[in-house]
Amino acid sequence: MSSSSLDQRALIEEIIRRLRTVLGEARTPVLLHQPLFAGNESKYIQQCIDTGWVSSAGSFVTQLEHQLAQFTGARHAIAVVNGTAALHIALMLAGVERDSEVLMPSLTFIATANAAAYCGAVPHFCDVSLRTLGIDAARLDDHLALVAELRPEGCINHRTGRRIAAVVPMHTFGHPVNLSKLLEVAAKWHIPVVEDAAESLGSYYRQKHTGTFGGLGILSFNGNKTVTTGAGGAILTDDDDLARRARHITTTAKAPHPWEYVHDELGYNYRMPNLNAALGCAQLEKLPELLDRKRRLAHAYAQAMADLSGVSLFVEPPDCKSNYWLNALVLDRADFDLRDQLLAALNAANLQSRPIWRPMQQLPMYRDCPRMDLSTTEDLAARIVNIPSSPGLVRPSN
Amino acid sequence: MSSSSLDQRALIEEIIRRLRTVLGEARTPVLLHQPLFAGNESKYIQQCIDTGWVSSAGSFVTQLEHQLAQFTGARHAIAVVNGTAALHIALMLAGVERDSEVLMPSLTFIATANAAAYCGAVPHFCDVSLRTLGIDAARLDDHLALVAELRPEGCINHRTGRRIAAVVPMHTFGHPVNLSKLLEVAAKWHIPVVEDAAESLGSYYRQKHTGTFGGLGILSFNGNKTVTTGAGGAILTDDDDLARRARHITTTAKAPHPWEYVHDELGYNYRMPNLNAALGCAQLEKLPELLDRKRRLAHAYAQAMADLSGVSLFVEPPDCKSNYWLNALVLDRADFDLRDQLLAALNAANLQSRPIWRPMQQLPMYRDCPRMDLSTTEDLAARIVNIPSSPGLVRPSN
Repeated sequence: MSSSSLDQRALIEEIIRRLRTVLGEARTPVLLHQPLFAGNESKYIQQCIDTGWVSSAGSFVTQLEHQLAQFTGARHAIAVVNGTAALHIALMLAGVERDSEVLMPSLTFIATANAAAYCGAVPHFCDVSLRTLGIDAARLDDHLALVAELRPEGCINHRTGRRIAAVVPMHTFGHPVNLSKLLEVAAKWHIPVVEDAAESLGSYYRQKHTGTFGGLGILSFNGNKTVTTGAGGAILTDDDDLARRARHITTTAKAPHPWEYVHDELGYNYRMPNLNAALGCAQLEKLPELLDRKRRLAHAYAQAMADLSGVSLFVEPPDCKSNYWLNALVLDRADFDLRDQLLAALNAANLQSRPIWRPMQQLPMYRDCPRMDLSTTEDLAARIVNIPSSPGLVRPSN
Repeated sequence: MSSSSLDQRALIEEIIRRLRTVLGEARTPVLLHQPLFAGNESKYIQQCIDTGWVSSAGSFVTQLEHQLAQFTGARHAIAVVNGTAALHIALMLAGVERDSEVLMPSLTFIATANAAAYCGAVPHFCDVSLRTLGIDAARLDDHLALVAELRPEGCINHRTGRRIAAVVPMHTFGHPVNLSKLLEVAAKWHIPVVEDAAESLGSYYRQKHTGTFGGLGILSFNGNKTVTTGAGGAILTDDDDLARRARHITTTAKAPHPWEYVHDELGYNYRMPNLNAALGCAQLEKLPELLDRKRRLAHAYAQAMADLSGVSLFVEPPDCKSNYWLNALVLDRADFDLRDQLLAALNAANLQSRPIWRPMQQLPMYRDCPRMDLSTTEDLAARIVNIPSSPGLVRPSN
């Protein structure tokens, strides 16, 4: 065995030892992210059962939308069946259409790229910043200077002939992108911004909630998110007309009438059911506590990993307050072998862990999409391991 | 006031009087269709809350799929987020693609047409039979003889140049289409059958469950259906490979791996959450009782309306056992004025009622779709009124 692999083994063992100082012995699997149900979840769901209102009509959907708007500061929140559906509709409303392009990180969950594909559009992959894990706006600007030009019909990729219809910053693991630079570049190139805040409920950039910077933003309430509705998502916007359109298109575009079934355009069956919204309302009531727990868990991890050579905990970027949705260990150097050995050892030690997503340009259906140089993405893909991040892993504050 | 309108008023009053003999005085609104939760609904949902398994993983989804397969006799059932999603994927798997055509009734809920549109395909509307309210297969055969021809690449509409990729019989209000004739015509023209059994869980054609005749079928568990999961649906198939593909595509096409996030084709976030599946498992346990209640309600309505001139209750077609999902009054003659007066009077009398759907070719986005002569559809659209059909409106049998 080489000294290098001995070093690797020692590093992995030390990481596990330090994680155990935070998490205890882990005699049973510690999951990557489990929801915490410690409020009115059962009570509100029982109300749905008792009244029979479990489906697309019911007061919890409206209440959830109101709570979301209030919490995020968005003027409107439209609750839908999941984050993917939210992104699909948000892109459509931003003007993404067949044979247009959508700028997005390739270091993202598959939903970001798929939502563009559902619109018939083509993802155009951007590299990310080491400091945010999200789109590197300065380098995107340089890239656009090479491939794009402003014409009367919009920003055109002159290599493909397609219109660049939107840019989708995704706030990886809850850590906000450098939004001031990104908005500046988007404005310069006349590209609408749709924020993928699926992971960043409770994350702020300069005291403003993520998902409220672009014309449209989206949230996710999947089972592994900070707040869950089983499956669910929401569209955020300050624009009254976009909100009205979003609500219409996500409810089969049915025209209002006491009994007639008239639909006036192609719509989608994307409304969040009342049963799921009931769970979300109870969860949102506890969001400040959940965020506090998650920050304290991240702080404990950061302290435990401090001064350990070879790895560090990713911490929130400057000017940001992150929800620390998923805590991420970042290896000092890109090494898939080390990463995979660490993953195997962590999972064997009952500490459920996973790598960051496979970059989109490496998947067969997105292999031929346009892209900028993705060297930071390729580097980070070999360095990041997510570790258990459930809010229930720390006690509540007093 | 003309004698005709006096007759109309008398007819409407007599209909309401007779409905009250079944439903009582209706001092509060009697809804069109309310779910009945009288089993393990709360218990199973509480298990989700207690264990934290509310989302896309969890044992209730598998259990629901097993119960559905067992009840319908399909080899496989794949639970998804709603009936629209089920139909979208079933059409894709049947080979529906961009710029192909899908034969379907124009007298259907919007989801049937929208699912074809999601595939980039064009609905091709068929007229319905007075006896089934579903596709009139004999007349479809005549229509195909005029517009279609068999070529090596399939059945081609020679007027549009497009391939006819599927036919979608929809079992209106739970009443089965004449499936033997429909399957014969589909086989003759080499057109795959995808059954839209969204409304017909518990309905049988010649003792075989609807949704199990075509290569693929779908069910819906929307809040207004016989069995509800809040929102939900399922794909039915006997084909192992189609089932495997359906499961893969509806779960983001993620390749199985303990931690890697690799997706090998364009997939969808369509998996039913465990929370909703829990509700469905409890509901399915009670399905025989629900079906019994619904049959007895239909029987009571039929008796109440017997011998009333001008209107009748629609009853199950020959060779069929219907779930009587929504009971339908059928006026003797097509008269929108009478229909709308009846709807207004019923709703004013606290008996929530609605007309059949606006035929698809009358909606702006489907106005230019190919179609056969739709005279029976146009006739029926002015004659049908659905009346309250909840299983809770009759007592359980002993």
